[in-house]
Amino acid sequence: MHTLETCRALDRRDPLARHADRFARAESGAIHFDANSMGAMPVDAPERIRRVMTECWRDKSRRAWTSEGWVERPRQLGADICHLVGARPGDVVVCDNTTVNLFKILSYAWKLRRGGGVILTESHNFPTDLHVAQGFVRLLADLGVEARVRTAESRDRVEAMLDRDVAILYLTQTDYRSSERWDIAEMNERAHAVGALTVWDLSHSAGAVDVDLAGAGTDFAVGCGYKYLCGGPGGPAFLYVNPIHQDGTWPTISGWMGHAKWDQFLTEYEPDPGAARHLTGTPPVIANEVFAAAAEIWREVDRKDMARKHESLTETLIALLEQECGPLGVGINSPREYRNRGGHVSFSHPGAGPVSEALTDHGLLSSFRYPNSIRLGMSPLYHRHEDVWEAVAIIKDVLAREAWRDPMYQVVSI
Amino acid sequence: MHTLETCRALDRRDPLARHADRFARAESGAIHFDANSMGAMPVDAPERIRRVMTECWRDKSRRAWTSEGWVERPRQLGADICHLVGARPGDVVVCDNTTVNLFKILSYAWKLRRGGGVILTESHNFPTDLHVAQGFVRLLADLGVEARVRTAESRDRVEAMLDRDVAILYLTQTDYRSSERWDIAEMNERAHAVGALTVWDLSHSAGAVDVDLAGAGTDFAVGCGYKYLCGGPGGPAFLYVNPIHQDGTWPTISGWMGHAKWDQFLTEYEPDPGAARHLTGTPPVIANEVFAAAAEIWREVDRKDMARKHESLTETLIALLEQECGPLGVGINSPREYRNRGGHVSFSHPGAGPVSEALTDHGLLSSFRYPNSIRLGMSPLYHRHEDVWEAVAIIKDVLAREAWRDPMYQVVSI
Repeated sequence: MHTLETCRALDRRDPLARHADRFARAESGAIHFDANSMGAMPVDAPERIRRVMTECWRDKSRRAWTSEGWVERPRQLGADICHLVGARPGDVVVCDNTTVNLFKILSYAWKLRRGGGVILTESHNFPTDLHVAQGFVRLLADLGVEARVRTAESRDRVEAMLDRDVAILYLTQTDYRSSERWDIAEMNERAHAVGALTVWDLSHSAGAVDVDLAGAGTDFAVGCGYKYLCGGPGGPAFLYVNPIHQDGTWPTISGWMGHAKWDQFLTEYEPDPGAARHLTGTPPVIANEVFAAAAEIWREVDRKDMARKHESLTETLIALLEQECGPLGVGINSPREYRNRGGHVSFSHPGAGPVSEALTDHGLLSSFRYPNSIRLGMSPLYHRHEDVWEAVAIIKDVLAREAWRDPMYQVVSI
Repeated sequence: MHTLETCRALDRRDPLARHADRFARAESGAIHFDANSMGAMPVDAPERIRRVMTECWRDKSRRAWTSEGWVERPRQLGADICHLVGARPGDVVVCDNTTVNLFKILSYAWKLRRGGGVILTESHNFPTDLHVAQGFVRLLADLGVEARVRTAESRDRVEAMLDRDVAILYLTQTDYRSSERWDIAEMNERAHAVGALTVWDLSHSAGAVDVDLAGAGTDFAVGCGYKYLCGGPGGPAFLYVNPIHQDGTWPTISGWMGHAKWDQFLTEYEPDPGAARHLTGTPPVIANEVFAAAAEIWREVDRKDMARKHESLTETLIALLEQECGPLGVGINSPREYRNRGGHVSFSHPGAGPVSEALTDHGLLSSFRYPNSIRLGMSPLYHRHEDVWEAVAIIKDVLAREAWRDPMYQVVSI
């Protein structure tokens, strides 16, 4: 039986509790349980940006490139967060967006694998992951090179379809709807057994659950920077390259920032020896500064602490949802065993669309996914168990009073 | 004979004069003549960003995606600036960085051209332009497809090498060192006569000189957003696709933001019918908001006024440099005829490296290019002829007093 008191007791034992106040809460006091969509803002981010805009852009102009270390930022930010996904500094860089990074890494893996073959993924992977693979195969077809994307309808089917025709196993670790989580180590092993390389999208995992890329023998990974990592709306993404692949071939997009000697303005391309060869153009200074506000906090966070806190938050959430809202039509969609569950918890309700709208008006921000599920994305950095208690109290109230049946909420949104 | 008075008289007749105060000047009062490296900051940009961070990110979180029109921004910003390069709304989008856009567009053009062949460019093109082409050819080679980059040592050689083997003529309109400017219409015509497509990099042209992409029959163009366009350090770039090519084939990087129905989360990719198919991942919200501060100003600017102002500024600069500093060892590197000259003016001096450092300390920001030239990039939006007078007075003073010979300036920077 969970109570407000048991939640507070958990908060008192939380080694990450001190970070919660480093993130801003909405002026309305609303609880944002949408870390899966957009992580919260570090309190000092606006002041950092003001400084960069006035003291650097306005006052120093181009001289700030060197005096402020703007060019090294993508490498530095990668070093700041790499421990969260079990990688070494130098193996992760922060750059571009998730889609561009997926393309760069998928095509790079393809080139390394040579000999062609199948890109195996799930049919319910996130749209942009699927689109990137479809577009890459179309590019190859336009060039007269044969390749195929094969999509499996279920996790069992992925395992069944993982045969010697597969060049690349291309998966998102945590499903963006159900929150089902793959065991990366196990799938890497299966892929390698048939000669395939692995490309993982960690968008709904990084900054929430325990990911050990190096320990799991991962070939490549990519992830979003603006969800659990709190890098700002549409902020830069990241990519990981296993050291054994870093000097395998040229990056697909060879740009001056990935040049081994970028500061010499050489005309012949020479790739950086490490993962940084996948950097492309001029770094987005202001977006990187926003990311840096969060990265500064992440540097102090132990991965195991992060994962334990996340487990505790989501276990508490599931238990409370069942305890308080089970009789009101709430069912848990996400896996019950923590090791099978990613960053968010998804629950079903027949009125999920309007319920989600009503929750917003009652002080709880969630995200609705068609047709009948609501996602609650929880951050180990800034959410408290007491927030979970309050959130469930809001859900219970909205369902018990049937507040969501108000015609103003009968609008379906995605 | 130019005097402070003739400069002021030109400013009084300047139709763009009212915009100058909409850009911030350095607190030190220094004159930034480095619009070629980083355009100035719109005065209201910091407040816009503060609002987006607090009222949107902090208070609305994910709901801001729809309420703030964040997803439409890349299209909207393209529509805001398209008239500056002679394009229609819908033919320009603002996204990614210049390098990524060069890759997307060069590979797209290659696919349209079919049949393979040569990518023809200049050996002194900007490094990242060269690297992208080298990397694309390497990608093709890794896939067993033959292609070549051929580089011409001079403009005459480009014309001589433009034969039927050429698939794509790939040029930067304004040379980043000398400021030599290509006639786009003439080169498009020559390229089309041999069956080649054209890809132009407008990084040192857009927002300064008169570019008429549609009128010139341009196939594709790409450009930097943070130079003359004032989109913020490392801010988003832009790309242009001629309507005749927009539905030619899939974009190389097929992402959810380039999907015809991005808001439906469909698993099968279907390209947007227009240039927007080249959008990739989630838009960089904060970076786009910075760009929007400048775009709001650009919307009010007539392209012809912009070009006339720029011509007047740079003609005045050249005349004053010769008049005041010619006897002090200054030589003009840039073309004398305005139609052959791009955004900046480059002059030579035997001590250019230390001179540029000394100028900074004396209140004039320029950019040095190895071995002996200094670039002054001038913006028709926020520079005044009186600024030109003051800048030349500083140069004259530093040279006449040989202030640059101070050992503290004997550092070579790029």
